[in-house]
Amino acid sequence: MAVQKSAQPAPGKPAPDSTRRSEKSRRAIYDAALALVVEVGYPKTTIEGIAARAGVGKQTIYRWWSSKADVLMEAFLDLAEQSMREAGPEPYVFPDTGDLAADVKAVLRATVDQMCDPRFDVPSRALAAEGVVNEQLGRELVAKLMQPSLDLYVGRLRAAQEAGQMRPEIDPRIALEFFISPLAQRWLQHTGPISHEYTDTLVDYALHGLAPR
Amino acid sequence: MAVQKSAQPAPGKPAPDSTRRSEKSRRAIYDAALALVVEVGYPKTTIEGIAARAGVGKQTIYRWWSSKADVLMEAFLDLAEQSMREAGPEPYVFPDTGDLAADVKAVLRATVDQMCDPRFDVPSRALAAEGVVNEQLGRELVAKLMQPSLDLYVGRLRAAQEAGQMRPEIDPRIALEFFISPLAQRWLQHTGPISHEYTDTLVDYALHGLAPR
Repeated sequence: MAVQKSAQPAPGKPAPDSTRRSEKSRRAIYDAALALVVEVGYPKTTIEGIAARAGVGKQTIYRWWSSKADVLMEAFLDLAEQSMREAGPEPYVFPDTGDLAADVKAVLRATVDQMCDPRFDVPSRALAAEGVVNEQLGRELVAKLMQPSLDLYVGRLRAAQEAGQMRPEIDPRIALEFFISPLAQRWLQHTGPISHEYTDTLVDYALHGLAPR
Repeated sequence: MAVQKSAQPAPGKPAPDSTRRSEKSRRAIYDAALALVVEVGYPKTTIEGIAARAGVGKQTIYRWWSSKADVLMEAFLDLAEQSMREAGPEPYVFPDTGDLAADVKAVLRATVDQMCDPRFDVPSRALAAEGVVNEQLGRELVAKLMQPSLDLYVGRLRAAQEAGQMRPEIDPRIALEFFISPLAQRWLQHTGPISHEYTDTLVDYALHGLAPR
């Protein structure tokens, strides 16, 4: 009966077995895409290669995504969410305890933990490296993977401005770069070690400039 | 006579023609190395490929450099020096007029101009992208290409501390990241536009945190 159901699902209403099978395929595709981009690099990763490694037909992938960039972006987003969830704070929520320094430090500590997790580190380096030389992909990575986090920083910094904890003339979109860019450069370009102590220091140095006097 | 001279130079004292020829080969090798890393990427750039494109023998390259990373690093260093010289300030000299904000702004404006020069931008992206995923190369890029600039920033910031323009408890090696990392991230990861106005803003925001109160 289960076989019959999933072979002929009601239109627009897949049977539970079909949903489960789809979810399994989706996860196999994500895993295959991330593994391939690490092993052979972005330019040589193909939809065919992902399909073969995931054990699904090419058409299954094209049904859900329009390009390899799309598959990878979603695979990566899913991974980042998993890794963020494990590291602590909920993704897409920026803590607001009223103490700006403490809140930004907590978020940056979770980011450091994520960067030190090889499951996140290795595929995100492969994607970031391609984004450096492939401007279109780079801009998609920013829009789809980074922008949601940047928006959260902007929101938290605006709240800090309203609470009188940050100078009103500061542009939050630029201010947030004092928190994320030094860490990103150390991580991506190997310019220095990263640790909770380091990001705490960034916050303290930056806030002395950002807080009103 | 010129031919005879360069065919049998005095030991350890090459004739002028030989020196000129060496200089010409060296430049052809630099150009070939930079062009190849842009066209085929770092992994596929080989000493053989560089030699063929430069019109020299493989042994000529091995006489001067021990690896393709060495050739590329020197080619890039030479390019960065040329580009810096054209942009204004002498490379390896950080201005010290006594006005920290003005000095850092001048250096960053020259860096922006360099980043906007395609001769510098394209090969340095190719090298930086490889440094992201190839930790050994990444660390060499930092040690050979970035460290001299970082040392100049540290020196200028120490002078500012001695002049009472920066809080004494600040670590200059971390402080300099407020100047260079946001710009580096916008440039490498396409996270935002870069301009003189932007880097001036970074300096103003950062110094309000770094200056003593």
